[in-house]
Amino acid sequence: MNTGADKLGTLAIVGVGLIGGSIGKAVKERDLAHRVVGIEADAQSAQWAVENGLLDAVSDRVPEDADLVALCVPSDAVASWVIDLADHAGVLFDVGSVKGPIIESVQERGAVPERFVPCHPISGSEKSGPQAADGALFNDCTVVFTPLDNTSDAAQQACAYFWQALGATTLQLGFAEHDAALAVTSHLPHLLAFAFMEQVEEPHLALTGGGFRDFTRIAAANPELWWRIMRLNRRALAGALEQYSDNLQTLAAAIETDNEVQGMALIRAAAAKRQAADKTEN
Amino acid sequence: MNTGADKLGTLAIVGVGLIGGSIGKAVKERDLAHRVVGIEADAQSAQWAVENGLLDAVSDRVPEDADLVALCVPSDAVASWVIDLADHAGVLFDVGSVKGPIIESVQERGAVPERFVPCHPISGSEKSGPQAADGALFNDCTVVFTPLDNTSDAAQQACAYFWQALGATTLQLGFAEHDAALAVTSHLPHLLAFAFMEQVEEPHLALTGGGFRDFTRIAAANPELWWRIMRLNRRALAGALEQYSDNLQTLAAAIETDNEVQGMALIRAAAAKRQAADKTEN
Repeated sequence: MNTGADKLGTLAIVGVGLIGGSIGKAVKERDLAHRVVGIEADAQSAQWAVENGLLDAVSDRVPEDADLVALCVPSDAVASWVIDLADHAGVLFDVGSVKGPIIESVQERGAVPERFVPCHPISGSEKSGPQAADGALFNDCTVVFTPLDNTSDAAQQACAYFWQALGATTLQLGFAEHDAALAVTSHLPHLLAFAFMEQVEEPHLALTGGGFRDFTRIAAANPELWWRIMRLNRRALAGALEQYSDNLQTLAAAIETDNEVQGMALIRAAAAKRQAADKTEN
Repeated sequence: MNTGADKLGTLAIVGVGLIGGSIGKAVKERDLAHRVVGIEADAQSAQWAVENGLLDAVSDRVPEDADLVALCVPSDAVASWVIDLADHAGVLFDVGSVKGPIIESVQERGAVPERFVPCHPISGSEKSGPQAADGALFNDCTVVFTPLDNTSDAAQQACAYFWQALGATTLQLGFAEHDAALAVTSHLPHLLAFAFMEQVEEPHLALTGGGFRDFTRIAAANPELWWRIMRLNRRALAGALEQYSDNLQTLAAAIETDNEVQGMALIRAAAAKRQAADKTEN
């Protein structure tokens, strides 16, 4: 296995959707592998990905000689691939948005392979499918690794090198810590935006500005994917929602009772945090 | 008063912040008025606006010969300007985000002048002050007019011509209907985003992507301005929040109980509406 600056031999991508397709595209654009092979149940998507240069070939199974296997299937489908590939010689990683349930699901069926590195690139789009693939999707993206005690250092290094070559930064966290944080920073906003769109009616659409557009953009995300994510992380999400509901009720009560001191203090703190977040990015 | 394609004589802008400054900048860039005079309590902001070409001059009062007076002060300061200018010969409009309370506040102090056109350009930015002025802010922006029974047609036409010259589209609504709709499309998203930021802590900031950034952008908005807007429209906002809380609870319960049929139906409907909103824009 290539763990340094040398070109990869064979990269296998299981699941050629937005993320898998973007990995293929980024790898081909940067010429990071001699061969990129896709494993994709949807024959049309797979064909499209080959014709458009995201993959070199499609296969119905992961090649024996794959050095690196990117499992880009939905979170609830990752565990069975990990178990199936337990004896494969390559390094495996997934890209699921929820780490605990994936790891627990593997553990229920057998030992977690040392060469499996649970990964989560915090990146995405409200679009889906290989047609939306973007070779720059991982530029400036944070990829969280949630290794277990037995995860091999060499496998982690190989993954870190791979993601960094795609322009990403890597970060290590415990899986429970990851899932609790992502419940706040990603899953809760999606839940809130989906619920918000329910009450938007057609006549409202003429009365919207840039704020509405940005606030609701994530509600256009893939419903199947997001149902799975929210369901898998439902324990952490419920905790995040409980805290949110308390905060919302306190702020709403300040408005309702015209309590300017409390209301302004809450809004000022929120605005200051959001402004600081922009500075952190830059 | 100029109601057609001729250039305005004098435009007065009361309150030279983001909106007032952007009106000045847009008018100067398009050469729509012979003279743009600003009335602004903050002497430094006023001076900056003159030096940077947003205004021709500053004044401590609205010139007698102003053809058009743009009241760009905060919503709760509009009524006293309207009353003070009741005998002025020019057409007046405001840009407040909440119309009912402004109109009621004028009515409590006297008759609403026929030449006052309550306006709301649905446009803005999380930025504030004349330094953030943008001459293109009203391009493709919808400006809602909420005229009363006695509002003069000529005044409405003059305002419509003015806003259209800045690139905007105009739309007429009753003020109560406007306030109920904007509670949903603008004030509720701000309330939700402010409340959301309360639970975001510093370690979360490394774990955010584009979805978080877009969803929370409006929480960086001017706290004083938004406290006033939410407080003024608190009746309509409370109604919108009640409906929202019901929808949120239903969706959260579907996730909690793993009710895929109901949860997927809700999320699919939300995503379809959001996708349709993008098509409406284009």
